[in-house]
Amino acid sequence: MEDKGISRAVITRLPRYYRYLGDLKHEGVERISSQELSRIMHVTASQIRQDFNNFGGFGQQGYGYNTNYLHQEIGKILGLDKDHYMILIGAGNLGQAIIKYMHFKKRGFYFKGAFDIDPSLHGTMVDTVMIYPMDQIAPFVKEHGIDMAVLTVPKAAAKETAELLYDTGIKAIWNFAHVDLETPPHIEVENVHLYDSIMKLSYNLHKNG
Amino acid sequence: MEDKGISRAVITRLPRYYRYLGDLKHEGVERISSQELSRIMHVTASQIRQDFNNFGGFGQQGYGYNTNYLHQEIGKILGLDKDHYMILIGAGNLGQAIIKYMHFKKRGFYFKGAFDIDPSLHGTMVDTVMIYPMDQIAPFVKEHGIDMAVLTVPKAAAKETAELLYDTGIKAIWNFAHVDLETPPHIEVENVHLYDSIMKLSYNLHKNG
Repeated sequence: MEDKGISRAVITRLPRYYRYLGDLKHEGVERISSQELSRIMHVTASQIRQDFNNFGGFGQQGYGYNTNYLHQEIGKILGLDKDHYMILIGAGNLGQAIIKYMHFKKRGFYFKGAFDIDPSLHGTMVDTVMIYPMDQIAPFVKEHGIDMAVLTVPKAAAKETAELLYDTGIKAIWNFAHVDLETPPHIEVENVHLYDSIMKLSYNLHKNG
Repeated sequence: MEDKGISRAVITRLPRYYRYLGDLKHEGVERISSQELSRIMHVTASQIRQDFNNFGGFGQQGYGYNTNYLHQEIGKILGLDKDHYMILIGAGNLGQAIIKYMHFKKRGFYFKGAFDIDPSLHGTMVDTVMIYPMDQIAPFVKEHGIDMAVLTVPKAAAKETAELLYDTGIKAIWNFAHVDLETPPHIEVENVHLYDSIMKLSYNLHKNG
């Protein structure tokens, strides 16, 4: 029950390892050396070994890693062997696209409901997901054992909407509002800032000009 | 015309400064010290001064920074004082949501057209943006002086779709496909990996459990 003290940088790299190993598995590659993984991922082999050593090393390095096993173990570390029950708050364009676009089920992420302030949306469906009024969030979370909320509300509403979740039993918020959400210690948060991303691209586009 | 050698970490922090300064401006805060900015942004004041020194420091630190001036100058560094003409490739759920959701115009980002392989979409509109067949990308880019492409195609199609852009005059690709796109040196790329982000959240949710 204690934090294993893995650095944020390692955690940030884990999904990328998972993604590359999934591709290798898909291509039928059964074993891979840290050197070969290094070459395709553009990280040093020593970085890879160091990252993996945080989790026990994943098997004999001289013979290379078993791709399938490594993919599965990193998946477990990422919690992908467990089911996650999610709600979406803010069923506008982005929210609806996230429900439709992210094929979460194969990774164990299930949208159980969506919530919006707009009464004209209540009772309507996005894919197989029903939209409910905001005041039903707390009972819904309890009834369905929801552990994650996806926040796709406007920036101005993000903080107060997040606060609605704090005492409901929600354990994690995936925040798309253009604000750095600060949550109490019992709630994990991951901020996705699409505007920051395009501004960085814009910087790189102009840096030599 | 040469790279000013600003580190990636500094560049990654610039949009965040821009965002906080925009909020302060909006709240009517005229001057801000690096200490105060440090407190609200959770970065050290010396980090802030160091970051700003990459760009000349932005004025007398003893009196604090002029919020409006600092916001404007960082905006210029990010290229936000220039207009960007964009196309979207892959007009599915995510692509359509990005056109509708990202209120780009106020920052000078304009979608001029969208492209998709699905013939039933050709000639239809997303917001004010027309969807065209893929074979019109190259002439369209030339005719409209497009500098950025947003790539919202499936993973399997990402690489070959990006290659269609390499000789068109496009300077930057904002990639949402679940793959690390590698581009030639004359094309900047920014990869947005939504799955990586939710996996990181899932890891944090389970790390203590």
